Amino acid sequence: MKEKMKGFAMLDLGKTGWVEKPVPTLGPYDALVRPLVVAPCTSDIHTVYEGAFPRELCDFPRILGHEAVGEVVKVGEKVRDFKPGDRVAVPAITPDWRTLDVQRGYHQHSGGMLAGWKFSNPLKSGGKDGVFAEYFHVNDADMNLAKIPEGVSLEQAVFATDMMTTGFHGAELADIPLGGTVAVFGIGPVGLMAIAGAKLLGAARIIAVGSRPRLIELARYYGATDIVNYKRENPVQKILELTNGEGVDSAIIAGGDSSVIADAVKVVKPGGTIGNVNYFGAGDYLPIPRIEWGVGMAHKTIRGGLCPGGRLRMERLLALIKYGRVDPSKMISHRLKGFDAIPEAFELMRRKDLPDLCKPIVVIEE
Amino acid sequence: MKEKMKGFAMLDLGKTGWVEKPVPTLGPYDALVRPLVVAPCTSDIHTVYEGAFPRELCDFPRILGHEAVGEVVKVGEKVRDFKPGDRVAVPAITPDWRTLDVQRGYHQHSGGMLAGWKFSNPLKSGGKDGVFAEYFHVNDADMNLAKIPEGVSLEQAVFATDMMTTGFHGAELADIPLGGTVAVFGIGPVGLMAIAGAKLLGAARIIAVGSRPRLIELARYYGATDIVNYKRENPVQKILELTNGEGVDSAIIAGGDSSVIADAVKVVKPGGTIGNVNYFGAGDYLPIPRIEWGVGMAHKTIRGGLCPGGRLRMERLLALIKYGRVDPSKMISHRLKGFDAIPEAFELMRRKDLPDLCKPIVVIEE
Amino acid sequence: MKEKMKGFAMLDLGKTGWVEKPVPTLGPYDALVRPLVVAPCTSDIHTVYEGAFPRELCDFPRILGHEAVGEVVKVGEKVRDFKPGDRVAVPAITPDWRTLDVQRGYHQHSGGMLAGWKFSNPLKSGGKDGVFAEYFHVNDADMNLAKIPEGVSLEQAVFATDMMTTGFHGAELADIPLGGTVAVFGIGPVGLMAIAGAKLLGAARIIAVGSRPRLIELARYYGATDIVNYKRENPVQKILELTNGEGVDSAIIAGGDSSVIADAVKVVKPGGTIGNVNYFGAGDYLPIPRIEWGVGMAHKTIRGGLCPGGRLRMERLLALIKYGRVDPSKMISHRLKGFDAIPEAFELMRRKDLPDLCKPIVVIEE
Amino acid sequence: MKEKMKGFAMLDLGKTGWVEKPVPTLGPYDALVRPLVVAPCTSDIHTVYEGAFPRELCDFPRILGHEAVGEVVKVGEKVRDFKPGDRVAVPAITPDWRTLDVQRGYHQHSGGMLAGWKFSNPLKSGGKDGVFAEYFHVNDADMNLAKIPEGVSLEQAVFATDMMTTGFHGAELADIPLGGTVAVFGIGPVGLMAIAGAKLLGAARIIAVGSRPRLIELARYYGATDIVNYKRENPVQKILELTNGEGVDSAIIAGGDSSVIADAVKVVKPGGTIGNVNYFGAGDYLPIPRIEWGVGMAHKTIRGGLCPGGRLRMERLLALIKYGRVDPSKMISHRLKGFDAIPEAFELMRRKDLPDLCKPIVVIEE
Repeated sequence: MKEKMKGFAMLDLGKTGWVEKPVPTLGPYDALVRPLVVAPCTSDIHTVYEGAFPRELCDFPRILGHEAVGEVVKVGEKVRDFKPGDRVAVPAITPDWRTLDVQRGYHQHSGGMLAGWKFSNPLKSGGKDGVFAEYFHVNDADMNLAKIPEGVSLEQAVFATDMMTTGFHGAELADIPLGGTVAVFGIGPVGLMAIAGAKLLGAARIIAVGSRPRLIELARYYGATDIVNYKRENPVQKILELTNGEGVDSAIIAGGDSSVIADAVKVVKPGGTIGNVNYFGAGDYLPIPRIEWGVGMAHKTIRGGLCPGGRLRMERLLALIKYGRVDPSKMISHRLKGFDAIPEAFELMRRKDLPDLCKPIVVIEE
Repeated sequence: MKEKMKGFAMLDLGKTGWVEKPVPTLGPYDALVRPLVVAPCTSDIHTVYEGAFPRELCDFPRILGHEAVGEVVKVGEKVRDFKPGDRVAVPAITPDWRTLDVQRGYHQHSGGMLAGWKFSNPLKSGGKDGVFAEYFHVNDADMNLAKIPEGVSLEQAVFATDMMTTGFHGAELADIPLGGTVAVFGIGPVGLMAIAGAKLLGAARIIAVGSRPRLIELARYYGATDIVNYKRENPVQKILELTNGEGVDSAIIAGGDSSVIADAVKVVKPGGTIGNVNYFGAGDYLPIPRIEWGVGMAHKTIRGGLCPGGRLRMERLLALIKYGRVDPSKMISHRLKGFDAIPEAFELMRRKDLPDLCKPIVVIEE
Repeated sequence: MKEKMKGFAMLDLGKTGWVEKPVPTLGPYDALVRPLVVAPCTSDIHTVYEGAFPRELCDFPRILGHEAVGEVVKVGEKVRDFKPGDRVAVPAITPDWRTLDVQRGYHQHSGGMLAGWKFSNPLKSGGKDGVFAEYFHVNDADMNLAKIPEGVSLEQAVFATDMMTTGFHGAELADIPLGGTVAVFGIGPVGLMAIAGAKLLGAARIIAVGSRPRLIELARYYGATDIVNYKRENPVQKILELTNGEGVDSAIIAGGDSSVIADAVKVVKPGGTIGNVNYFGAGDYLPIPRIEWGVGMAHKTIRGGLCPGGRLRMERLLALIKYGRVDPSKMISHRLKGFDAIPEAFELMRRKDLPDLCKPIVVIEE
Repeated sequence: MKEKMKGFAMLDLGKTGWVEKPVPTLGPYDALVRPLVVAPCTSDIHTVYEGAFPRELCDFPRILGHEAVGEVVKVGEKVRDFKPGDRVAVPAITPDWRTLDVQRGYHQHSGGMLAGWKFSNPLKSGGKDGVFAEYFHVNDADMNLAKIPEGVSLEQAVFATDMMTTGFHGAELADIPLGGTVAVFGIGPVGLMAIAGAKLLGAARIIAVGSRPRLIELARYYGATDIVNYKRENPVQKILELTNGEGVDSAIIAGGDSSVIADAVKVVKPGGTIGNVNYFGAGDYLPIPRIEWGVGMAHKTIRGGLCPGGRLRMERLLALIKYGRVDPSKMISHRLKGFDAIPEAFELMRRKDLPDLCKPIVVIEE
C-alpha cells in the first residue's frame, strides 16, 4: 500500500482544499478504511466557515468528513471481528470505550465533553482527520465499526452514521408517549430523521416546522402529519392553535438559532420534554422563557445531546433499514460520482440555496 | 327511555343466554351508553367456560362483553365533557380514578389487584354488567370515555378498547430498544397488536411465533419479519438459531400456557425483558427456568400487566389510528350485523376452530 | 359551628391583615379542617410583596398560608377514610384528581400549569383561601389528606406539607446516582430538605452553597459534606475545584435568582442533571450557558417542577419521619404560640434578616 | 519478584488446599496486585461444595477468593492511572469493557451471561484464579481498580468489592419509591447490605426476614424497622399482617431457596417490584405463583442480577463509606490475621453454624 494519500481538508478558518498526508498507521485495535460512499454534513460547514473553534486550539490542515461507509483495508493484530474486504458503516462518533464516562453511560463524552467526536474535529486535543480521504483511521474497530447487512445498500447505510443516529436521538431525548403529539423544529436531514424517529418511537401526530417545498414533501413522507411554515406564520401560535391551546407532549429541536429553545418551551405541555440535537453556533446563552417554564416549576424537561455512536448503535440502525422500518435514502437530493466530487458536494452543503437540496452524497465506488 | 333492557349474559359457569335487566341508573359522574359496535373477547370465554372464577364469588346473571364503541344516551349532572349523542370508545378498563393505587401509578389495580376491570367481570365485588346489552353504565365518564375523532371509523375504534391497548402494553412492558429484536409469542388479535406495538415502539426485527396461515399473513402485515411455526419446530431453538445463538432483546407473551414463560426467559439475552399480557388460566405456578435465568442473576426482567384503560389511553390510541400509524380493522375476520348476532359472535370466539378466524365484530348500528 | 371565621389575608398587593369570612361550605368529597400547627412560606412572601401576580387576575382578600396540620372538623357525605377528630397533614398541593393531566402523570398541573396549588393562591381562577384561618376547606379529602401516624409529632408533620416534598422533589428531579456527588444551591428550608433528600436518595458527597452560619450548621446536620460560601468565593469555581475539575453528577437549585441556572449547568458533568424547585420571580428568560451546555449536546438535562402533593406523598413522607429517616423539626428556629401569632411569624419570614432564622412555626394547639 | 506463588485453591469438587502456581503475567492494560485484606464469600462455598459447576467444564486447581483490597505491585505499559504502591479495591466483577454487551448496558454479562465474574470462577472458559494468593491478576486496571480514598480503612473497603455492590444492587433492582415499604428476605451480609441499600435509596419502612440474633441486631443497625423471624412465623402472612394486608412496595431477595421467589411475589403490591441478588443453587424452575401474580397481569415485576463491578462502581461505593453514609465494617464478626489464616476463614464461612458469625475477614497486612 502506498504511503501518501489525498484528502479534502480544512486548511484554515474559512478555507478548504486538497492536501496530501501520510496514510494513517494503526494501533493493535484499530482499522484502516477506504471510503466507498461519503456525505458532507452541515456541522463541517459550521467548523470551517462559522468560527466554531478558535484557531489557536486547532490543527490544520484537518481532513474533513465524518459520514462514510467503506471497505476495511487493514486491521490491527487485536481486531477480532473485522478483516480486509469487509464493508462497514463508520459512525461519526467513535469513542474511546475505556473511560469512566462510558461506565457512567455517556460514551459520547468519553474523555471529556463531546470527545466521542473525532473525525474532522479540528481540535489538536481530541480531533483527527476525517473520512474525505483515500483512507481513514478507525480507533477500536471491534467497538466502532458495523458490517453492512444483506439487504442494505451503501447509499442507505451512509445515513446511519450521522443523520439517522442524530435525528433519532432527538426523538429519544424527547421522551415521546405512545400516541403522543410531537413538534419537530427544522426539516433538514436531521429534522427529517427526527420525524422518522418520532414515528418509530410511537408518536401519533407530528407537527413539523419548516418552509422549503421539497423538504416539506419529505417531512410528510417520513411521518409529519402537519406542517407549520415559519415564514408565513408564528410557529408557537400555530402549534398551540393546532393543539387547541394544549401544546404538544414533546418537542424536538433539529435546527434554528438559540430562540428555538424558547419556542420549544412555549409549545410543550406541563410535563412535556424538549429534546435538542441542534448545534447552537452563536450567543452566550440559550433562553428559557421564565413564565412558560412555570417560573421554574412546570416539569418541562430540557435535554440535549450528541448522537450515540459505536458499533451496537450502527447495527441497530442498519437493522431498521434492513427490516424496512425506514428508508433514509429518499433524502438523497444529489448523487455525485467519484472521489474528486467531494469538494462539489461540500460546496452544495455550504451554499444551501438550491431549492431542491436535501442531502448530497458522493459515491466513490459501488 | 324504557326501564328494562336485554343483555347477553353469563347465566352460570359454562352457561350463557339472553336476560332482561333494569336499565342502569347513573351517579352524578356517570354515563349511559348504547353500543354501536361490539366485539367478543377470549377473556370472556375463559370466564364462562374455563372456571376462572369460583361460583360462590360470582353474581349471576352477569351481562358479558367489554369491547364496545357506542353513543352516549344520558349523563350524570357532573359530567363536563360528554353529552347525549356523542360517539365514544369505551375502554375495557374503567377504573375508579380516586384511589391511592392511581396515585402510585397503577390505575389498572385501582381498588385492588386487577380491579380496574369491571365490565363483564363476574365477581360480586368489583364486577358489573358488560356491554352486550341495549345500554351499559360507564363510571366516571369524563375520565373513562373518549370521543371518536374524525377519520376513525367505529369498526377501527372498537379495537382501541382492548386489543390495541393490551397488545401495545405487551410491547411497552417489554422495554424494546430502538432497532432491537423482539420475539412475540402468540398471533391471535392480542399478539398481532403486540407485533404492531413493537413496530410502533422501534423494533427492527420481530419474530412471531404462531401457526395459523391467516394469522401468519396478518402478523407479516403488522410488522413481523420472521415467523416461527411452533407446530413444526421448537420455538426456543428456532429463535436462538435465527439470532445466531444470541437471543432477542425483548419477548412479548400474548398467548400460550404457563410454559411460555420458560420459553420467553430462554430466548432473551442477559439484560433483556419479557412483557406478558397473557391471561394464565391454569396451574399453581409459572416456571422461571433457573439456569437460563442466570441462577437468579441474568438481568432478565419479567413483567406482566393488565392493559391501561381510561380516557387518555383511548385518545392516544385513537390518534394512532387517525394519523395512519396502525389500522387494526384488518383483523376483522367476521362482520356480523345487529344486536341479535352477539351470541353468534361469541360462539365463533369460543369455537376457535374456523381456519380464518381472527376477530369477529358485531355492528349493531353504523 | 359558627358561620364566620377569622383569617390572616392578603388584602391587596403588598398588604396583609385580618379579615372575617364565612366558614367554607363543603361538597360531598370535601373536608373542613381546623389548623393546629401552621408555618409561613417564602412563596407567600413572593405573592404578597413581589408582584408575582397581576392584581387584575387576583381575588382579594385572599387568606394566606399553605402549610398546615390540623384536625378534621367536618366531612362531606362521600368521604370514606376521614372523620371529625382525625389529625391530618394537609399538602400544599391539593389537586383535582380527575383530569387528563393526572392520567398523564402530572397531578401538580391538574387543570393547567401549576393548578394543583390552590391554598393561598391569589388567582381568581384556581386559587382559594389558605390555612391561616380558623377553618379551611380541603377538596377531595380521601385523595388529599393523610393521617398523622403514631410517633410523628404535629411539629414534624407540618414540614411534610411543603418543605419536605419540595426539597425532596429537587433531589428526585436531579436523578442522583447511588454514591454520586451533588451540588445544592441554597440552604434555606427547601435547600436543607434538598440536602436531606439527596442523602435519602443515595448521594455520597453533597456540596451545599450558602452563607448564613446557622443554616450552614443545619446543612451539615442534614447531610452536606462540603460548604461553599458564595459570599467569599465563586461557587462555580469552587465546586469545580473541589471535584478536580470534573463537576458534579447532579445539581439541585433551591434558591437564587435566574443566574443560578447558568451556575448549575456549569458545575454538572456531561450526562448530569439539574433539578430545580426554586420559584424564579423575575426576568424574562433563564439563561442556559451555550458553551458549557455543549453547544446543545452535552446531555446536561434541565428539569424543574412543583412539589408533589396528595395523600400518598404525604403518607410516604410521614413514614420517613416515623421510621427515623429524617427529622425536619430541627429546622424550627422560632416556635410561636397561638392563632394570633400568625402575623408575627409571617413578618419573620418577610424580614429574613434575623441571623438565626430558618423556619418559624405557629403552634395553635398541641 | 519471585516466579512462583502460593494460593488457596479448589482442588476438585468438594476439595480445597494450598497450591503453588506461577505468578501471573500481565498484558499491557493489566495490573498485578498483592492482597492486603481479603474475605471469603458464600458463593465460593457454593462453588466448592454444592456442585454448582460440572467438573468437565472446570479447570482445577483454581485459586479461590474474589473479595480483596490490595497493593498494586506491577502494571502493564498502557495503564495510565495506577502505579506500584497504590492501595486499591478490586471488584469481584472485573469485566472486559470492550464488548457489545457493555454497549447494551450490561457489563456484568460482557462476553456472555455472568461472564463479568472471573476471580475464583472455576470454568475453563471465562474463569481465572482468585485473590486468595500471594498475587493476583487484574484485567484492564484503569477500568477495574479503584484507589482507596483517604478516610476509608482497608477493612471497610473490602466490603465494597462484593457485599455492598451486591446488596445495594438488590435495592436498586427493587425500584423502591421514596418513603416506600420494603421487605428484605435474608439477613446474611448481602441481606444486611440490601437493608442498608434500601435505606440509602429512600425506603421508610424496612421489614427484614431472618432468625439469628446477632444478625437481627445488625439488621436493625443498618436500617430494618421490623423483623420477621421465619422460624417462628410464616413470613408471607406476617408481612401482610404488618402492612394491613396491602403488602410492600418492593421486595429484595438476598437468601433462601427457590420458594422465596413465590414468597416475594405474594408480599408485593400490584405494581411492586422484586429485586433478586440471590444465587439459586438448585431446582429446575423458580416458581411464580399464578394467582398472586394476577394471572399474569398484576404488574409485579421480577428482576434479578449480578452485582455491578468495575472502577466507577467501586469509587462510588467507597465515597459512600468516606462520607459516612454507611459503615460496612460493623459486619465483621471474625478478624483473622495473616495470609495463612485464609483456610480458617473459609472454613468459618462453610460451617455457618457459629451463632455470632456474620462475615470473617483476613487481614494479611495493614
